[in-house]
Amino acid sequence: GLAAPAIAQENPKISWRLTSSFPKSLDTIYGGAEDIAKHLEAATDGNFTIQPFAAGEIVPGLQAVDAVTANTVEMAHTCSYYFWGKDPTYAIGTAIPFGLNGRLQNSWFYQGNGNTLMNEFYATQGIYGLPAGNTGAQMGGWFRKEINTVDDLKGLKMRIAGMAGKIVEKLGVIPQQIAGGDIYPALEKGAIDAAEFVGPYDDQKLGFEKVAKYYYYPGWWEGGPVVHAFINLEKWNSLPKHYQAALTDACAFANTNMMARYDMKNPQALKQLVANGAELRPFSQEILEACYAAALSVYEEISASNATFKKIYDDQLAFKKDAYLWMQLSEYTFDTFMMIQQRAGKL
Amino acid sequence: GLAAPAIAQENPKISWRLTSSFPKSLDTIYGGAEDIAKHLEAATDGNFTIQPFAAGEIVPGLQAVDAVTANTVEMAHTCSYYFWGKDPTYAIGTAIPFGLNGRLQNSWFYQGNGNTLMNEFYATQGIYGLPAGNTGAQMGGWFRKEINTVDDLKGLKMRIAGMAGKIVEKLGVIPQQIAGGDIYPALEKGAIDAAEFVGPYDDQKLGFEKVAKYYYYPGWWEGGPVVHAFINLEKWNSLPKHYQAALTDACAFANTNMMARYDMKNPQALKQLVANGAELRPFSQEILEACYAAALSVYEEISASNATFKKIYDDQLAFKKDAYLWMQLSEYTFDTFMMIQQRAGKL
Repeated sequence: GLAAPAIAQENPKISWRLTSSFPKSLDTIYGGAEDIAKHLEAATDGNFTIQPFAAGEIVPGLQAVDAVTANTVEMAHTCSYYFWGKDPTYAIGTAIPFGLNGRLQNSWFYQGNGNTLMNEFYATQGIYGLPAGNTGAQMGGWFRKEINTVDDLKGLKMRIAGMAGKIVEKLGVIPQQIAGGDIYPALEKGAIDAAEFVGPYDDQKLGFEKVAKYYYYPGWWEGGPVVHAFINLEKWNSLPKHYQAALTDACAFANTNMMARYDMKNPQALKQLVANGAELRPFSQEILEACYAAALSVYEEISASNATFKKIYDDQLAFKKDAYLWMQLSEYTFDTFMMIQQRAGKL
Repeated sequence: GLAAPAIAQENPKISWRLTSSFPKSLDTIYGGAEDIAKHLEAATDGNFTIQPFAAGEIVPGLQAVDAVTANTVEMAHTCSYYFWGKDPTYAIGTAIPFGLNGRLQNSWFYQGNGNTLMNEFYATQGIYGLPAGNTGAQMGGWFRKEINTVDDLKGLKMRIAGMAGKIVEKLGVIPQQIAGGDIYPALEKGAIDAAEFVGPYDDQKLGFEKVAKYYYYPGWWEGGPVVHAFINLEKWNSLPKHYQAALTDACAFANTNMMARYDMKNPQALKQLVANGAELRPFSQEILEACYAAALSVYEEISASNATFKKIYDDQLAFKKDAYLWMQLSEYTFDTFMMIQQRAGKL
């Protein structure tokens, strides 16, 4: 009869592999890939499955995009900005310093031009991208000594990567590229003076407070970093439309759920870190202003030579100007009032 | 053969009706129901469809939950707190005054105990609930005169509903229940002195700035109101698991996408409102503190006589204390710096 073959086409059995750029020990961010896999399998009645692999199991974390482009794996769960060395446009996909907060990233990607513009770029790389996680604003990292002025940054050896490294370099910082597991001994031995990682829940696992107790905020280079699902473009285009739809929604769930998980886990970790000796410090306004000026000059330099970066950066900038106007009314003043009550012990 | 009937069971054709509590003219909030329908249909290859109806087409907006409980329709897209007269526990599902902001609502619902506890309650009402939209912090509404002190609230006739009405009543406000379309003439004639609605994009459609130009913020009674999808509990339980999964993810997408849409549309509307004569005013700290104290006394009163409310309120409160501790570090200081740049015209 006709029924069986027709239906076999409608709901083909598809099994993909996904390479994460994260180790399983970072369960919150690695968990985003598990969320995608679980929700996709459930929504397709087990017909479309994805098996997540931790960084290093198939390819190293920083080769995730290459592995998708080459179709070694069909998918990756990673941060677009890890690949900014190929093209700085990749950085905008995750977060550029002094960019958007987590909530506004969603607005720019889903309702602004974010997804459209970034996917025009990603198509040139043979990949298709879907936002699939956000950590919220990260911390500014761990410092062995207090830093108060821009002068204190001069000669500071700091583990900080990507575009943020390029920016602080303008202020005299010596950026260092160090894998997560090697940060602690480098700080302990004094080979570096400071290191940024993620936020309380992830940082706590590495014990930084024992060797560099000053914990600075905010992580101005990551105000709302997006974690992406990247899919080999031909594989994406070959999917039945309803599998594309189910994967899109699974990624949307993972996107919101990751920040939900961080907001649930970070408060306890923060309290424990402080109990163990971490000292919280805000970056001074002087330092923030200098970093901001340096960031603008970096964007100007890149825009002068990279038309794709310029086009997308300008679009996000126009969105940002309006968005922060609106957010400073009700959202900000509501939060401010609630935080005043929290500090006063009146919640 | 066996194939056809087995497959017919796997992907049954299901068509549901959804009653929205909103008119189509409020396209952002009504659009949440359209998002759910569109994403669900796409993910199920057209097998599971939902037809949304505007408020009044099947039942009036404020009968949405009754219609789902009675199975007049299978689903509603509405605000849980509209039904707090049945049981104040309904209010927690959307937002209680001085509750959580939009981002923290997601954390409490998805990763805290929110969805579990609220659905234990909703089950007693014959419904199952999924977060399916959020407006972000709303505005405090339109006032014909400036209000600066708690004394200025005495005798003020204000269109404000639900638990917020009960709270401001303690401070001498005379709360009024008025349908959306009737607010403008009531303000124009001076039958009321103030009215709260939503935020710039929705408020602009009703032209309030012409008759009550002082536009206050924040809407402390709605720091992050959730819009729910409610499903008749028996209908939910009768769905194939993969349809439940697809509907869950479609609602998660709608949840994030609604706030994304508001954050995209509110800035332009805000600028136009101000250009048309609206005058922005923050509620004074004195007024906020008095409202907060009144809110706490209302929660104490309700908790004394309603064990379900108390259980869920206490759970959310414990979450809230930790969450606002964490949010005031990186997230808040990042946003603050960006808003300073925005105000200085330096973005």
